[in-house]
Amino acid sequence: MKTHKKERQTLLREAIQSTPFVTDEELAKRFEVSIQTIRLDRMEMSIPELRERIKSVATYQWNETVKALPIDEVIGEMVDLELDNRAISILDISKEHVFSRNQIARGHHLFAQANSLAVAVINDELALTARADIKFMRQVKSGERVIAKATVTGKDPKGRTVVEVDSYVDQDHVFSGVFEMYRSNEHKGVETDENRS
Amino acid sequence: MKTHKKERQTLLREAIQSTPFVTDEELAKRFEVSIQTIRLDRMEMSIPELRERIKSVATYQWNETVKALPIDEVIGEMVDLELDNRAISILDISKEHVFSRNQIARGHHLFAQANSLAVAVINDELALTARADIKFMRQVKSGERVIAKATVTGKDPKGRTVVEVDSYVDQDHVFSGVFEMYRSNEHKGVETDENRS
Repeated sequence: MKTHKKERQTLLREAIQSTPFVTDEELAKRFEVSIQTIRLDRMEMSIPELRERIKSVATYQWNETVKALPIDEVIGEMVDLELDNRAISILDISKEHVFSRNQIARGHHLFAQANSLAVAVINDELALTARADIKFMRQVKSGERVIAKATVTGKDPKGRTVVEVDSYVDQDHVFSGVFEMYRSNEHKGVETDENRS
Repeated sequence: MKTHKKERQTLLREAIQSTPFVTDEELAKRFEVSIQTIRLDRMEMSIPELRERIKSVATYQWNETVKALPIDEVIGEMVDLELDNRAISILDISKEHVFSRNQIARGHHLFAQANSLAVAVINDELALTARADIKFMRQVKSGERVIAKATVTGKDPKGRTVVEVDSYVDQDHVFSGVFEMYRSNEHKGVETDENRS
């Protein structure tokens, strides 16, 4: 929809409030203006860029520390963490992550982001991946930003912690994985959605 | 079994002939001697070390070229290839591959070795991973050598090529993965074991 500046800025503010992870590219498409126009709108309204928004949305409740590995061993930049519950990380895909021939991100980098997030979310000194069922839904190209969201969904029958990780580029779901994590204090485990409610 | 040198060397030669991927460590354990003794035995009998044996076993039939990616983008050292049939690679686990805290290899490196082998075995200019079901069976430590074997097992109902990858340290099965690979010439596909026999 094409709108006047004032109207557009009002709608823009609403859009960013309701979906804080939306990118400038996405907003430009939605409002049928250039990305530069969106940036100027944001600056006029003092709305920070996506990365800063993600951090501010995330970190107000991020007062926990990664336990299972040093934070610099997490692949991507972690922006949110609630141990044994959820975590979010960002990975900017660059030349080093893609096949030279077609600039498509190599699967093991998306896997590494998701898998290290699944390790990081575990509230234990030791967390190892026992099994994973993963899907690559659409190709990710050099220059794209992948946001991975990990959610602890429960325990499997063997007492392992199950972590689901979904990764997005803009609104596109690009990767999903279900990780069964071994931990040293398996008997403690986590609550499932069922017994938590 | 403890044996005299001459007898041991005869048995050693037979053992290596029947299982060429056996390591010096494994042989030392089997013959109840030191690894150094096995190395000296091998030198006396002019039997090359494992890496060279794998290459010589493998390359006599390796007259094909990787198609889906440049060979230097394969993670690990590829030592055998028969397109749309099977491939083998070796990855030596070093400091860069392990968690700093416990020296256990990080899952994404074993995944990267297996996944890039699954890509490399495809006889197509374009091969991308659509889905994978993977298991980590035992921890791999820094200093261990992982041998991954990929086998093309058929097509799934969507016409994707299915590649099974099993990775070993000595005789231990450390990783297994079933990869569903998308390729540009899906209609060509591959024969299954059933219609090949």
